[in-house]
Amino acid sequence: MAASIKDVAKEAGVSIATVSRVLNDVDVVNEETKKKVQEAIKKLSYRPNIVARSLKTQKSRTIGIIIPDISNQFYPEIVRGAEDVANIYNYNIILCNTDLDPEKEKEYLRVLKEKMVDGAIYMSNSLEPETIELVKSLELPIVLVETTDKNNTFPSVTIDNEEAAFEGTEYLIKKGNKRIAYIGIHEDAVHAAAYRFSGYKQALSKNNIALNEDILYFAGLKAADGYDAVNEILKKEKIDAVFCASDELAMGAINALRENGINVPEEVDVIGFDDIYSASIFYPKLTTVGQPMYDMGSVGMRMLIKFIDKIELPQEKFVLPHQIVERDSCKK
Amino acid sequence: MAASIKDVAKEAGVSIATVSRVLNDVDVVNEETKKKVQEAIKKLSYRPNIVARSLKTQKSRTIGIIIPDISNQFYPEIVRGAEDVANIYNYNIILCNTDLDPEKEKEYLRVLKEKMVDGAIYMSNSLEPETIELVKSLELPIVLVETTDKNNTFPSVTIDNEEAAFEGTEYLIKKGNKRIAYIGIHEDAVHAAAYRFSGYKQALSKNNIALNEDILYFAGLKAADGYDAVNEILKKEKIDAVFCASDELAMGAINALRENGINVPEEVDVIGFDDIYSASIFYPKLTTVGQPMYDMGSVGMRMLIKFIDKIELPQEKFVLPHQIVERDSCKK
Repeated sequence: MAASIKDVAKEAGVSIATVSRVLNDVDVVNEETKKKVQEAIKKLSYRPNIVARSLKTQKSRTIGIIIPDISNQFYPEIVRGAEDVANIYNYNIILCNTDLDPEKEKEYLRVLKEKMVDGAIYMSNSLEPETIELVKSLELPIVLVETTDKNNTFPSVTIDNEEAAFEGTEYLIKKGNKRIAYIGIHEDAVHAAAYRFSGYKQALSKNNIALNEDILYFAGLKAADGYDAVNEILKKEKIDAVFCASDELAMGAINALRENGINVPEEVDVIGFDDIYSASIFYPKLTTVGQPMYDMGSVGMRMLIKFIDKIELPQEKFVLPHQIVERDSCKK
Repeated sequence: MAASIKDVAKEAGVSIATVSRVLNDVDVVNEETKKKVQEAIKKLSYRPNIVARSLKTQKSRTIGIIIPDISNQFYPEIVRGAEDVANIYNYNIILCNTDLDPEKEKEYLRVLKEKMVDGAIYMSNSLEPETIELVKSLELPIVLVETTDKNNTFPSVTIDNEEAAFEGTEYLIKKGNKRIAYIGIHEDAVHAAAYRFSGYKQALSKNNIALNEDILYFAGLKAADGYDAVNEILKKEKIDAVFCASDELAMGAINALRENGINVPEEVDVIGFDDIYSASIFYPKLTTVGQPMYDMGSVGMRMLIKFIDKIELPQEKFVLPHQIVERDSCKK
C-alpha cells in the first residue's frame, strides 16, 4: 500500500496542510519543518497523486509541443532544448506532429487542453486567425517558435531571418560572386523562412547587383528541392554562388552541381541556413547561416513556464542571435 | 459554460449511462442511438473531461516514450512512427530524453506512472535488473524497441542484428574484398548494435577470412568515431572495405578516407547500417543495411496498445525485416 499524504504528516509530526505547502513549494514553511517533511517523504517513499492534484489545481505539469514533423532534421534539436528545460522545472512534454495540417493542429490544441496541459510550444508556418481564436477560447498559454504571427498575438522566439539572410548573401558577395542564385520559399508564403528572400534582395540592391529572375527558385526546404533547383537554374544561366534557405537545400544543390561537373567551392560557393547536425558531416562541410535551434527550444520553454507561473516576461518577442558558420562549401 | 454529459443525455433523449457507453466505444449501443448521441455531442460541442475520467478509469490515453536522445538521428523516425499509430488510437505521447542515464530512466518511469500513462515504449542500451523490478512494481505495460533484454521479460521489437550484419559483411566479401575493417560497438557491450560484430565474424569465418585485430575499432556510433577509427586503422593496415555499425560511422569513415586520398567506392567499399534519412543525401550516397525505423516505432506502439487493452499478442517478440540498400558507397 502506497503512503498517503496523511502518513507523511503523521511521520513528520506536522499537519497535512504543511505537507501540502512543502509539496507545492509555497515559501511560508520554515527550513527545519521543511526538512522534517522531506525526510518523511523520503522514508515512506511517498509520491503525490499528480492526476488527482491536477484536477484540484487545474495544473498537470505537462506541456504540449506542437511541431510539423519530428523526423524533419530541423525539429529534434529544438524539442531537445525544450524538454531539457521542462525537465529542470519538473514538467513533461507531450509531442504532437501535425504535418502542418490546420485541422490536426486544432484537434491537438483541444486534446491538450482536455488533458489539462499547462501550456504549449507552437511551431507551424503561421498562426491562422481561426487558430488564434481557438487558443484564446481555450485559455491556453502558448509560445511560438519560428512561426509567423503578423498580429503579434503571442510571445515568440525567432531569429531575424531577414538580417540573417542579408548577412549570408553579403558573405557571398564579398567573395567576389555576382551571379548568386537563390533557392528557398517565396516571400509571399506565410512562413518564417520566407523573410530570407527579402534579406537576399536587400543585399543585392545594396551592392548594386540586379535581381535576375532566372536564377531564383522557390519550392520547399528539402534536399530534393535544392537538387531540382540547381538543375533548372543551370538550364538557363551560369552561376557563381548559391544562397540556400536551408541546409538540406544546400546539400541537394551541391549534389546537383557535382553531377553537373561543377566543383564546390572551387567553381561555385554554396551557403546553407540553419546549421543542422549533419551540416558538419556532409562533404564538403557546409558553410551556413546558423540559427541556435537548441536555444530556441530552451528559451521558448523557459518563457512559457514563466508565462504559466504568471511571472512577467522582460520582453514578449525574443529574437535570438544568428551567426555565419564558416566551413568548406565557400572559398576561403 | 461548457456542456456536461448530462446536457448531452438530455439533448439526445437517452440516459447518462448510454452517453458514457458511446464515449467509451462499448459495443452494446444500437447504431441509431449512437448517432443521436453523436449529434448531441456535436451540437453542444461537448468535450469529456479526460483528467476526471483518468482518475476514475485509471487510464489517461497517454503513453510515455523513453529514448536516449531525440536529437540523435536514429530516434526521430521511430518516434514519428509511434506517434502516428498513437494518434490513430487517440493516444498522446509524452517524450522523455534520458541520455542513457539509468537514474533519469527510473525517474521518468516513476513520473510517467504518477501521470497515469497507460504504458511506455522503452529504448535504451539494455534493461537493468533494477529497472525490470521497477517496471514490474509500477505495473506499467512496456514494449522495448531495439533494447537488449537477456531475460526476455517484456514484449519487444527489434531486427536480427546478427543476421543483418552477416549479410552486410557477405555483401562486401562478394565484391571481392578481403581486408574488411569493422567499426562499431564491442560485442561485450550491452547494446543491440553490439550483436552486429558477431554477424561480421561469422561472415568472415564462413568465407575463410581470418579475423585481423588491427582493423577492428570499437567506440560509439557517431560520425566522429568513424572518422577516428579510419585514421587509427590506416596507421596499421591497408584495407579493401569497411563495415560500419551505423550510418553516421560510415559518414565519418568516408570523410577520413577522403582526407587520406582514398576514393570511395573506387578504392575502398564502405557499408553503413540503419538507413537514416541523411544516408541518401550524403556524398557518396550510402550503401547500407537498412532497418525499418518508422515501422519499429509503429509496430511497437501497436503492440503496446494491444497490451494495454489486454488483447493477446500473436507473438511477444517481433523481429522486423532488414534489407541491404544499394547506393553509391560500394562498387557496383
